[in-house]
Amino acid sequence: MAEQPSPFSNPGSTQEVEEGRALAPRFDADGLVTCVVTDARSGDVLMVAHMNREALAQTIATGEAWYFSRSRQALWRKGESSGHVQRVVEMRIDCDQDAVWVKVEQAGAGACHTGRRSCFYRAVPLGKAGAVTLEFRDGDKLFDPKAVYKK
Amino acid sequence: MAEQPSPFSNPGSTQEVEEGRALAPRFDADGLVTCVVTDARSGDVLMVAHMNREALAQTIATGEAWYFSRSRQALWRKGESSGHVQRVVEMRIDCDQDAVWVKVEQAGAGACHTGRRSCFYRAVPLGKAGAVTLEFRDGDKLFDPKAVYKK
Repeated sequence: MAEQPSPFSNPGSTQEVEEGRALAPRFDADGLVTCVVTDARSGDVLMVAHMNREALAQTIATGEAWYFSRSRQALWRKGESSGHVQRVVEMRIDCDQDAVWVKVEQAGAGACHTGRRSCFYRAVPLGKAGAVTLEFRDGDKLFDPKAVYKK
Repeated sequence: MAEQPSPFSNPGSTQEVEEGRALAPRFDADGLVTCVVTDARSGDVLMVAHMNREALAQTIATGEAWYFSRSRQALWRKGESSGHVQRVVEMRIDCDQDAVWVKVEQAGAGACHTGRRSCFYRAVPLGKAGAVTLEFRDGDKLFDPKAVYKK
């Protein structure tokens, strides 16, 4: 990957982090920020992922979503296996600069590795006591994960 | 806080976690799941927070948002200081059950401790090299944090 000038500043005071115009991400002990991914069209939350320094820099540079896979401990261009890439329409950072929100155009049938549009396909009923029974919502499988991730 | 029957099951196989109807949250090493909070009306992401076992159980039981503050290391009923409580309209859990999405009705002027509607009031411009200059969007302060958090 070509060396690029860093888009990041070092986090300063709380005032600077919250009210400033410098991008000074506060990566956690594992070097990650949380990333919320919403569908630019529907507004639905598609997934929650993580970005390390390199993934965040690559996303900013390319306008395509890159993440860091905690399970594989590897930089990951979303869609590199499935073809389901995400074009970032807008990126926002939160007050304390430890979370990022990207609105994306999702290529292909879905964002979730289970074959669904969104990873959030089950609702948790509220106000009931005892063990919870999840309710499937928008849970149709739109692609066959076995076929898509075979490569 | 009154003892209540647990809403949680223990995580089983990947198949059970992803395709099952049991709520089996996969809390991380710090005992937390990530929680994305969106405005039920506008769809905007208001904040990203964390829930421990007790915060998640309280949210499910009461239909009001409870979180765990990592900085204060304390259970936290959203709005307990500011009055800006959040009524949860819908809760979803993601494929691997380590992230929750709540759609809320936000009481008061905003969710962010800086006085804004959303914590995500700055955009990160994409496709540019070098240091990034954040752009304020929807960044108007709707309440005075000093007055609201004085109590």
